[in-house]
Amino acid sequence: MTNFHGSDLERIEEAYGIKKETLINFSANVNPLGLSNSLLENLPKRIDLIASYPDRNYSSLRTTIGIYTNTNIDNIIVGNGSTELISLCIKALSPKKALIIGPTYSEYEREVKLNGGIVSYYALDEKNNFQVDIDTLKDKLTDNIGMLIICNPNNPTSTAIKKAELNNILKDCKKKNIFVLIDETYVEFVTDIQDVSAVELTKKYENLIVLRGVSKFFSAPGLRLGYAICSNKAHLEKIEYYKNPWTINALAAYAGELMLTDTNYIEKTVEFISSERKRIIDVLSNWNFVSFIEPTANFILVKILNQNMDGSTLFNKLLEQRLMIRDVSNFNFLDKQFFRFCFLKEKENDLLLNTIKNILQER
Amino acid sequence: MTNFHGSDLERIEEAYGIKKETLINFSANVNPLGLSNSLLENLPKRIDLIASYPDRNYSSLRTTIGIYTNTNIDNIIVGNGSTELISLCIKALSPKKALIIGPTYSEYEREVKLNGGIVSYYALDEKNNFQVDIDTLKDKLTDNIGMLIICNPNNPTSTAIKKAELNNILKDCKKKNIFVLIDETYVEFVTDIQDVSAVELTKKYENLIVLRGVSKFFSAPGLRLGYAICSNKAHLEKIEYYKNPWTINALAAYAGELMLTDTNYIEKTVEFISSERKRIIDVLSNWNFVSFIEPTANFILVKILNQNMDGSTLFNKLLEQRLMIRDVSNFNFLDKQFFRFCFLKEKENDLLLNTIKNILQER
Repeated sequence: MTNFHGSDLERIEEAYGIKKETLINFSANVNPLGLSNSLLENLPKRIDLIASYPDRNYSSLRTTIGIYTNTNIDNIIVGNGSTELISLCIKALSPKKALIIGPTYSEYEREVKLNGGIVSYYALDEKNNFQVDIDTLKDKLTDNIGMLIICNPNNPTSTAIKKAELNNILKDCKKKNIFVLIDETYVEFVTDIQDVSAVELTKKYENLIVLRGVSKFFSAPGLRLGYAICSNKAHLEKIEYYKNPWTINALAAYAGELMLTDTNYIEKTVEFISSERKRIIDVLSNWNFVSFIEPTANFILVKILNQNMDGSTLFNKLLEQRLMIRDVSNFNFLDKQFFRFCFLKEKENDLLLNTIKNILQER
Repeated sequence: MTNFHGSDLERIEEAYGIKKETLINFSANVNPLGLSNSLLENLPKRIDLIASYPDRNYSSLRTTIGIYTNTNIDNIIVGNGSTELISLCIKALSPKKALIIGPTYSEYEREVKLNGGIVSYYALDEKNNFQVDIDTLKDKLTDNIGMLIICNPNNPTSTAIKKAELNNILKDCKKKNIFVLIDETYVEFVTDIQDVSAVELTKKYENLIVLRGVSKFFSAPGLRLGYAICSNKAHLEKIEYYKNPWTINALAAYAGELMLTDTNYIEKTVEFISSERKRIIDVLSNWNFVSFIEPTANFILVKILNQNMDGSTLFNKLLEQRLMIRDVSNFNFLDKQFFRFCFLKEKENDLLLNTIKNILQER
C-alpha cells in the first residue's frame, strides 16, 4: 500500500522505517507559510484558557467568522474540524441517497453510508479535464436524491466550479428539493475567492450549507477547527440537536480568532500560492513526459505519460529521497498514472520537480 | 430558571448582568489547584504542534494513559472529552433499553434517546442516603436491558459504589448479557482510588467500559480530552468505526501527557481535596439547619431543612454575593431543598459556608 493520507506520517515510519521528521511532506495540502505570526505571538500567553469550559455558544469566535466571511453570526456553526460538521450535517439530513461529485475526499461517502444512505457519483471525466458539465449533472439530479455533495475546489483534482455555475446548480436543486453541501476547505487558496466561494449564495439559498476549516489554509491541522454557514434555521437546529457540547478546545477557539483576523498572513498566502502555482505550471508545461490538470488550489494533479510508470512507483522512488507525494490510487475514477502534490516553499518545490524529472526521464 | 450548568457563565452574564470574571464558581466541580505546573511550563513551548495533524492513533498519549491507569495501550481509546466517548459508546452498542442509576448527569439519557433507545432509572433513595442497594438493582437488571450506566462517584450525590460491589454487579450483568458503562469523571478525587475505580475490572470483564476525562481532576475543561478503557475488542472496533478521525486537538494530546505524568500535582490534589472534604463535613455536621450526603468526590450534596427555603432561592441569594452554587432542581429524584457545591480553596470555602450560614439562619 502506498496511498497514505498526508497526515499518516506515523504509518510511513512503520512501513518504511523513515523518521517523519526527515520527510518533506507534499501530500498534506497544508499552507507552507506555517502558523500565523499573530497566533505564534499571542496563543502561548493564553494557556490559562484551558482551565475554563469554552463558551457553549462560541459567540466571540462566531462573531469573528461572521466578519471574516461577511455573514450573520446566527447562520454560523462551529465544529471540531470540518470533519465534525460533515458528519453532523449528513446525520441531521440523513439523505436516503446522496450524489457526490468525484473523485473526491472519502469522508462524505463514509458518513452517508454510516447514516444508512446510498451514495452515487457524478464522475468527473478526464477527457473533460475533470470539469463538471452542468447539464449532465442536472440530469443526474433526480428527485430521489436528497443531497448533493461538492468539494470546491475539489480534492484531488484542484479544479473548481465557478460561483455563477454553482448558482445555476443551486437553483435546479432548490426546485428539486435537494440539499447541497459545499466543502470549501481549499477555497481561500484560489486567486479570486469571490469568483468561486458559495458563501454569499447562502443568503439566497436555504438548501445550501458551506463548510470550511483552518487546517489547510491556516496551516493548523492540529487545532481541529471548522465552521459552517447556512441560512436554514431548521437545518441548523437539527445539527445543534445532534452536536455534543464543547467539541472545540478553548485554545482552538481563541486561535481561530487570532488567525482569521491576521490579514497580513491571509494576503501573503494568496499571493505566494498564486505565484508558485503559476511557476510550477510553467515548469510542467515544458515537460513532455507528464500532463496535468489546471489547478485552482494549492495542489496539482499530474499524470505520468509513460505507461510503464505509475503514481505508486513514483511515490516509492520519491520516498527514497525523503519526498512524500500523494499516491491517489485509492480515489475513484482515476487511473494509476496520476499523482498529486501540494505547493511548498520555492526551494522545496524545485527539489521535488527536479527529482521527479530525473526519475521520469530515466525511463 | 436557576439550574445553570457549571460552565454556563455566559448565560449567567446574560440573565443577571453579572460579569463572569467576578463570580466564584462552586458549580463546575473543577479542581481548585488550577492547571498542572508541568503543563503551564511546557505547553506554551509547543504551540508548533498545531501545524501538524495529530497522530491518528494518538500512540504517545495512549502509552501515557496506559502507564497512568496500569492498563494495556490496546484497551485504551481517546476522545474529545468523555462526552464524545459517552456518545460513541452508546452509539456503538445502540441499546434498545438502558438502565441508568440516577439522579445523575443528563448526557447519558440524551445519548440513549438520540440513538432510538428507551431509558429507565434505578432511582437512588434519599432514605438510603442515595446508596445503591445491590439486590434491588439486580432485580431491575432484566434481560431486556442492554446497558447499565453508572456515574461513579456519582454526580450530584457525590456517593460512590465500591469496587467489590461493582464486581458483584458486573458478574450479574455478564450473566444477563448486559453491557456496563462506568463514568469515572470524579474517581481520582476519592481518598482511596483503588477502593472505587473499576479500571482493574476491565481486565476481568469484557462487558465493561470505563470512561474518564481531564476536565475536573486536572482542572482542564477547556482542553476537551477524555479516555476509555475496555478489553472488548469487538466493542472498541465498533467505536472506532463510528469515530471521526483526529477529534483531539494536538495541544490537548500533548497536554494530556504532561498532566498525567505530573505526580506531584496528582498527589497534592488528592491530599488537598481529602482534607477540605473532611473540614467541610465537620462544619456542616455542626449546623442544625442542613443535612448532607456523605461525599466521596470534590463536591457535596446538601439539603436545606427549612421548608420555606429551597435550592433555587439560595442560588439567587448567593449569586447576589457573587457566589455560584449548583441549583440541582433539574436533576431527577431530588426534591427542591437540595443544592450542590464543589470544594475550592480554604478561604473561598469559608466564605461560602459563612454566607450560606447567614442566609439560612436568618430565616
